[in-house]
Amino acid sequence: MANHTVVFQPSGVSVTVPTGTLVTEALRAAGIDVAQPCGGQGRCGRCAVIVRAGNPRRRSTIRLTEVDLAAGYALACQTVLEGDATILVPEQEQIERRLATDKTARRVEVPFPYLYARDQSVRAVGVTLEPPSLGDATDDVSRLRRALARMGLKDVELPLPVVRTLGERLRAAEWQVTVVLEFDTWARPDGPPRVIDVLPGDQGEAVWGVAIDIGTTTVTVFLVDLRTGQAVDNAAEYNGQIARGEDVISRILYASKGSGLQELGERVRGTINALVERLTQRNHVDPATIYKAALAGNTTMTHLFLGLQPSSIRLAPYVPAVNHPEPVSAADAGLAIHPRASVDVLPGVASYVGADITAGVLSSGLAEAEGLTLFIDVGTNGEIVLGTKDWLVTCACSAGPAFEGAGVVCGMRATRGAIEEVWVNTHTYEPTYRVIGETKPKGICGSGLLSLVAELFITGALDKGGNLKVDLGIPRVRQGEHGPEYVVAWGAETDHGRDIVLTKVDVDNLLRAKAAIYAGFNVLAQSVGVDLAQVEQVLIGGSFGKYLNVEKAVQIGLLPDVPWERFAFLGNTSVLGTYMALLSREARAQIKAMAEKMTYLELSADNTFYDAFTSALFLPHTDMSKFPSVAKLWE
Amino acid sequence: MANHTVVFQPSGVSVTVPTGTLVTEALRAAGIDVAQPCGGQGRCGRCAVIVRAGNPRRRSTIRLTEVDLAAGYALACQTVLEGDATILVPEQEQIERRLATDKTARRVEVPFPYLYARDQSVRAVGVTLEPPSLGDATDDVSRLRRALARMGLKDVELPLPVVRTLGERLRAAEWQVTVVLEFDTWARPDGPPRVIDVLPGDQGEAVWGVAIDIGTTTVTVFLVDLRTGQAVDNAAEYNGQIARGEDVISRILYASKGSGLQELGERVRGTINALVERLTQRNHVDPATIYKAALAGNTTMTHLFLGLQPSSIRLAPYVPAVNHPEPVSAADAGLAIHPRASVDVLPGVASYVGADITAGVLSSGLAEAEGLTLFIDVGTNGEIVLGTKDWLVTCACSAGPAFEGAGVVCGMRATRGAIEEVWVNTHTYEPTYRVIGETKPKGICGSGLLSLVAELFITGALDKGGNLKVDLGIPRVRQGEHGPEYVVAWGAETDHGRDIVLTKVDVDNLLRAKAAIYAGFNVLAQSVGVDLAQVEQVLIGGSFGKYLNVEKAVQIGLLPDVPWERFAFLGNTSVLGTYMALLSREARAQIKAMAEKMTYLELSADNTFYDAFTSALFLPHTDMSKFPSVAKLWE
Repeated sequence: MANHTVVFQPSGVSVTVPTGTLVTEALRAAGIDVAQPCGGQGRCGRCAVIVRAGNPRRRSTIRLTEVDLAAGYALACQTVLEGDATILVPEQEQIERRLATDKTARRVEVPFPYLYARDQSVRAVGVTLEPPSLGDATDDVSRLRRALARMGLKDVELPLPVVRTLGERLRAAEWQVTVVLEFDTWARPDGPPRVIDVLPGDQGEAVWGVAIDIGTTTVTVFLVDLRTGQAVDNAAEYNGQIARGEDVISRILYASKGSGLQELGERVRGTINALVERLTQRNHVDPATIYKAALAGNTTMTHLFLGLQPSSIRLAPYVPAVNHPEPVSAADAGLAIHPRASVDVLPGVASYVGADITAGVLSSGLAEAEGLTLFIDVGTNGEIVLGTKDWLVTCACSAGPAFEGAGVVCGMRATRGAIEEVWVNTHTYEPTYRVIGETKPKGICGSGLLSLVAELFITGALDKGGNLKVDLGIPRVRQGEHGPEYVVAWGAETDHGRDIVLTKVDVDNLLRAKAAIYAGFNVLAQSVGVDLAQVEQVLIGGSFGKYLNVEKAVQIGLLPDVPWERFAFLGNTSVLGTYMALLSREARAQIKAMAEKMTYLELSADNTFYDAFTSALFLPHTDMSKFPSVAKLWE
Repeated sequence: MANHTVVFQPSGVSVTVPTGTLVTEALRAAGIDVAQPCGGQGRCGRCAVIVRAGNPRRRSTIRLTEVDLAAGYALACQTVLEGDATILVPEQEQIERRLATDKTARRVEVPFPYLYARDQSVRAVGVTLEPPSLGDATDDVSRLRRALARMGLKDVELPLPVVRTLGERLRAAEWQVTVVLEFDTWARPDGPPRVIDVLPGDQGEAVWGVAIDIGTTTVTVFLVDLRTGQAVDNAAEYNGQIARGEDVISRILYASKGSGLQELGERVRGTINALVERLTQRNHVDPATIYKAALAGNTTMTHLFLGLQPSSIRLAPYVPAVNHPEPVSAADAGLAIHPRASVDVLPGVASYVGADITAGVLSSGLAEAEGLTLFIDVGTNGEIVLGTKDWLVTCACSAGPAFEGAGVVCGMRATRGAIEEVWVNTHTYEPTYRVIGETKPKGICGSGLLSLVAELFITGALDKGGNLKVDLGIPRVRQGEHGPEYVVAWGAETDHGRDIVLTKVDVDNLLRAKAAIYAGFNVLAQSVGVDLAQVEQVLIGGSFGKYLNVEKAVQIGLLPDVPWERFAFLGNTSVLGTYMALLSREARAQIKAMAEKMTYLELSADNTFYDAFTSALFLPHTDMSKFPSVAKLWE
């Protein structure tokens, strides 16, 4: 096979690759990082490069215009090298940091009465050994076992790496050591304790843990003092996988190609390790004293974290490799904490109802609710759980990315410059809006879109089908490229000088997203024969929930029309549940039992879902009687 | 600190090292291998090099003559670089291969009635899974667990690496797989089975194990078909650590310096892996189908194999890191078999009574003996066990290297060219001898020395004190550099043209060696109040035993004077016991119980030992009444 030389500008780095190599592969070989938010499917257009010399074959150009092509543009993920080439890599768009999490309170109080000695499976105990003599030449390991047995700790497991340093440590510490042990684990609840480490002298003061939540978008880590149970600090950061796919499907596709699985694993581990480093540095904690980690995420995220190929999650019958992995050592998991710390990956229920949801159900209180309770976590996917302490049903709806500001003409993430809330004047249809970071707007994020559509609907500018009334006689409603559009912000007010508009396409995207969620509620309720109006509590988790205006969400028909006092916004319920699981064996037992008893409904195998979805593709719904408070307001 | 350049001849390789670097360290940095049989103590003189330029500091020159020093010789392990230097590395003496083991029968029959399904802890079972569907989207791991549970295999442990490949293998094999499991282990005799691997299709035909014996000198490996129990082949090789110390003490010293511990570990793992490769290639076995290893060796050897620092073994109170290590995975142990095969390191008793002895006691039958039985394994150290099936006492005697042909003027290992047996004419004192490999003699090995001393004593040429009678009037007895000597072979007969002689120094070395062993017998017998004459069986293990002439050994007072039919030579009892432990959980339980019940006597803490030793420093003993058959012959 022929080899070709590719020179990348402006860096001038060149690589030699065989015929048929994708430009993205050549870029990786050259060590140049190019974002692929769609995971290399050729759908997002963000990996566009400019061919300066040579004639590589463009397999797909759907995201490129004639003008782009004439200028030499090509999608790196869709372009195959068949000869020498010189390629210019445009400067990459930087993902802006959302600083919210680090600005909020760092300390989280223990969510339940916590007793180190009773609840915690990791403990550090001081042990004094008798020094050996000619009359007692017992080997070091047996000597330690003997001392531990006297404290009631029998048949402990002593891994080889501990034995390797044992002799030296015992002697250097003059037979006075701290033994860090892990008691029951999921894999062996009644098994013998396992020694994590033997440390010289008294080191029982520093016993740390981390609770990790891997979101598709954001990774959050709590640093927890296992003696007090307090989360002394927390930090969040974008998941490093974003550059290789914005949603789980893009990531699954990316993972199925070449070294994609390995790369995505390294990226998320890199994000977690950077957060752990940030937390340990600013709290003066030695990362080697972190002896336990609990971790949640949706099923694709836990698969990628553990290096499990998630491809079967994407294809019917949607079977994951594992819903509840066995605990794995930090060394095997690639976490930069104590290498023999165990990492408990919390149990999920199905391919699209992961550990983030079971953790959320635990921390939200649904698992102990007396009355009918609805729990939702809305992001790219909407996961829904309905039930009480006695029973739980769950499903997942693919809402699409509208709630995250993607697939929307002027959409953006909820970062600095995003319009996050809009009010529309009932008479003039003039908008007022709030921008994240109190700066000039750049676009509109999910919550802004939702609030804008609700306002336009309630003021009468949008009809039940989501169509703009073009006869309002105001310049803000005009004919745009995609049909009628509403100007939220004129170019003079915006950061980039261009108008920020809402189009029919955007409204339709939002309608599909909210219809999918609402249809999910309906299917769950029907499956157990209850009415949504009977729901006593609606618990809303996830980052989207944090910014959601419940009034507007009900007005567009995303949330069921129950009295407002029944709604509660709980923030990141996943990391809170993970934090609980880190602290207590009882919480872990609860989450495991819950994951096992939860009934999962696969909507793609459910005929009632499509009917419910179609009925919900209106503002707020075809059946207005389901939304009495909205009907009243609208009239 | 200043850096210096050292050029090594004849290769011309040069390295730059800081002031104070030992020549051996510089050689290692340059990638040049120089043997250090004494472990770098400056005692053996085998690492001598010639300084051609520069003036490195010789810390010790005890092994070098004035002539050597004038010629520029220096001991690499004792010479420190303090400036630039040019050093000639003489051609290294090659360790000659002893081909004995590979020449003998390769196949070893199963030593007891063996039933794969009953005795073996590793088993491969065929499993058929139901393919997933939308109505049964159980995750891959739970699906496998469900199928195994139906076969009565509950709560199996499934390590992450198995889960990582599970999905792909299940689908590629259309849900028809072979699951390789390990049942009870020492660490968890009642624990759940652990999955070693899941293989596509039916692969239950290839289930292999290896039994490994790490001798200080020789490493032996048996390749075992775990279904039939048969050792289909075996191979042996010098332990790669020999170049860094001939005896355990030299190795312990070498391990305590710099990267010595790591190097010795790598060397012995390298030897084992080369033997496994040889065995698997010539038997067309895939090393990845070796799912279990059992391993024995003396305590220092098992420590070095596992990367445990053995330094405390050498110093009072002689405490090892561990007598019975927990099973370790082949990957962690560095063995080139299935990475998740468990490696059972058999239990030892004390620093100088290791797993080789417990394995030997098992295979020798002593553990089931009705009558009083003596088991000995003689090498550099003599390990002795006395007892019956009900009780066992043991001790170790430092015999020194005389039995291995070292520390003897014309001594050599039992390899090609060694005189291994000698007969002396009662009237003429003329010797007849047998040479290993039927070639011209180069020296005399341990068994040759023993037989020569016995013959000279019985014929009257040596007195009870081991002194040569100088008035025999034959040219073979003459005055040598070290006092009176006996010429075994004239230069005209020998390989190198020099006379092969026996000196007083050699006789004294042998007397000390045999006295240490015999004193050990005495102390053990006294400790339990029995007489050596009551011993019903003397079981002799170890490679030395293979070549030992029992008549001569009794004549010099090494072995107790009991009727010859009570002696049995069992060969490598250690590897045979390891083979049994590989095959059966019952054998493992037996060896563990035995190691725990064996009473170890530390001779250095025992006053009676020195008295017994002193009394035994004669031919055959001060108390001739203990050797009635010899007394009769001698008179």
